[in-house]
Amino acid sequence: MKIRIAIIGYGNIGKAVEQAVLAAADMQLAGIYHHNDNLDSIDADVAALCTPTRKVPAFAEKLLRRGICTVDSFDIHGQIYDLREQLTPVAQEHGAVSVIAAGWDPGSDSVVRALLTAIAPKGITYTNFGPGRSMGHTVAAKAIPGVKDALSMTIPLGTGIHRRMVYVELEDSADFATVEKQLLADDYFAHDETHVIPVPSVDALNNVAHGVHLERSGVSGDTHNQRFEFNMEINNPALTGQVLVAVARAAMRIKEESRYGAYTLIEIPPIFLLPGNTENNIRNLV
Amino acid sequence: MKIRIAIIGYGNIGKAVEQAVLAAADMQLAGIYHHNDNLDSIDADVAALCTPTRKVPAFAEKLLRRGICTVDSFDIHGQIYDLREQLTPVAQEHGAVSVIAAGWDPGSDSVVRALLTAIAPKGITYTNFGPGRSMGHTVAAKAIPGVKDALSMTIPLGTGIHRRMVYVELEDSADFATVEKQLLADDYFAHDETHVIPVPSVDALNNVAHGVHLERSGVSGDTHNQRFEFNMEINNPALTGQVLVAVARAAMRIKEESRYGAYTLIEIPPIFLLPGNTENNIRNLV
Repeated sequence: MKIRIAIIGYGNIGKAVEQAVLAAADMQLAGIYHHNDNLDSIDADVAALCTPTRKVPAFAEKLLRRGICTVDSFDIHGQIYDLREQLTPVAQEHGAVSVIAAGWDPGSDSVVRALLTAIAPKGITYTNFGPGRSMGHTVAAKAIPGVKDALSMTIPLGTGIHRRMVYVELEDSADFATVEKQLLADDYFAHDETHVIPVPSVDALNNVAHGVHLERSGVSGDTHNQRFEFNMEINNPALTGQVLVAVARAAMRIKEESRYGAYTLIEIPPIFLLPGNTENNIRNLV
Repeated sequence: MKIRIAIIGYGNIGKAVEQAVLAAADMQLAGIYHHNDNLDSIDADVAALCTPTRKVPAFAEKLLRRGICTVDSFDIHGQIYDLREQLTPVAQEHGAVSVIAAGWDPGSDSVVRALLTAIAPKGITYTNFGPGRSMGHTVAAKAIPGVKDALSMTIPLGTGIHRRMVYVELEDSADFATVEKQLLADDYFAHDETHVIPVPSVDALNNVAHGVHLERSGVSGDTHNQRFEFNMEINNPALTGQVLVAVARAAMRIKEESRYGAYTLIEIPPIFLLPGNTENNIRNLV
């Protein structure tokens, strides 16, 4: 029997989830809902929450109360554990499972960080993002008066330090020097090397490519200089959408075991993310 | 309460497990046993099986029957699922947990392969090993008549293809051309590009460095060209020993939940490999 997935929110991520569901033999679409639709009519095994991140907690609670499992890519790192605490009792009370913060970072990168910390417990992991668009910084740049459209690119400089390249399309009446000064003083940009560049069209720069370069040098036992590196160059929404579909599968597996609650990706056996039977997956991947 | 680990077999891996146990605040040593010792006196929560790989199944069965959890780095890829099938009923019957094939490949690399397959389901993963010593090929080279000592290095050529560099120290009476011809005809070497090099001392080349370059280009949803790469440059026994200690911790967590049986690393939540509490691990790593 196929897993019936409803998609809540139909922006970049919602569309990517749709494609990933259509490509998965064990899944079927159970409807696409814009995030201001009435959700009372949703009939699905799992709802993929593809809304703006701040709307995730309320949608998750609402759906879990109806016994519908939820998956999301909530991405405010400092609030993930709190969201888990908020959703765990709701999911438990209503016999459902929620997988939270399941994109690529937080998400699949988190699995790599946990694994590397386990196999080389002492050391430093640096997660270097980009080049790629930062959603949070882009939104902050767009909020500056005089900015018609903006794009903030994250450029990795190594050891977890990033440069911000901010492309701004100005309103006709705006003064670039004023916009630049205000943007550089904004808390989002004040602490990083930031360059502001006026462009005639931000849309002409549109590209959802992103990436990560994650590195750890650590100690296994008493042996130093154990070196690890994980790199990705990816289409950002496509990867996020695919992770959401993989964790939807995991949510159903966990629900089958009556282990109701809210989980982050590092709390889930990787094999639960995969279609197919246990024997084949072990023979092919271990 | 600390987890009490016994070490069975005291070669490179056993010594590395000892170091990893000594470095772990939640672990304590419960004895070191050579693999031909009598094991009836072992009193431990978990036994780390650091014997030759072919001896693992019998030791695991014996200890599981006594209710002692086991961990091993059994590395014959084609027989891992069968070992899991063999040990599962034994572990279940005696209220124990066995984590099998838990080194770095099979082991931590398997987790990366499973994760990448989940997030880019179509595509090819290439696992390129080395440069580093191949134990199986070294043993095969040592078995050639006239070879006093040998070392077979695995050199990655990309797309999962490897070159074998075989260093041989000859018996005084041996003829190099004869040894080389016989070695190249051996089934271990006949299918790969192999170079045989006579050296005065194999011991002088001794180095436990190893590595992997694992790469996948795949498809997320309907988006192609998703690119991933995982690299390690490591001390081989130190990493293997640390993985065994991490899965010993996981074995105890799974046992606490009364989920008795045999598991591969891709069936274990990564967070179970880590010391410390759930909240801190989620806050620091997700």
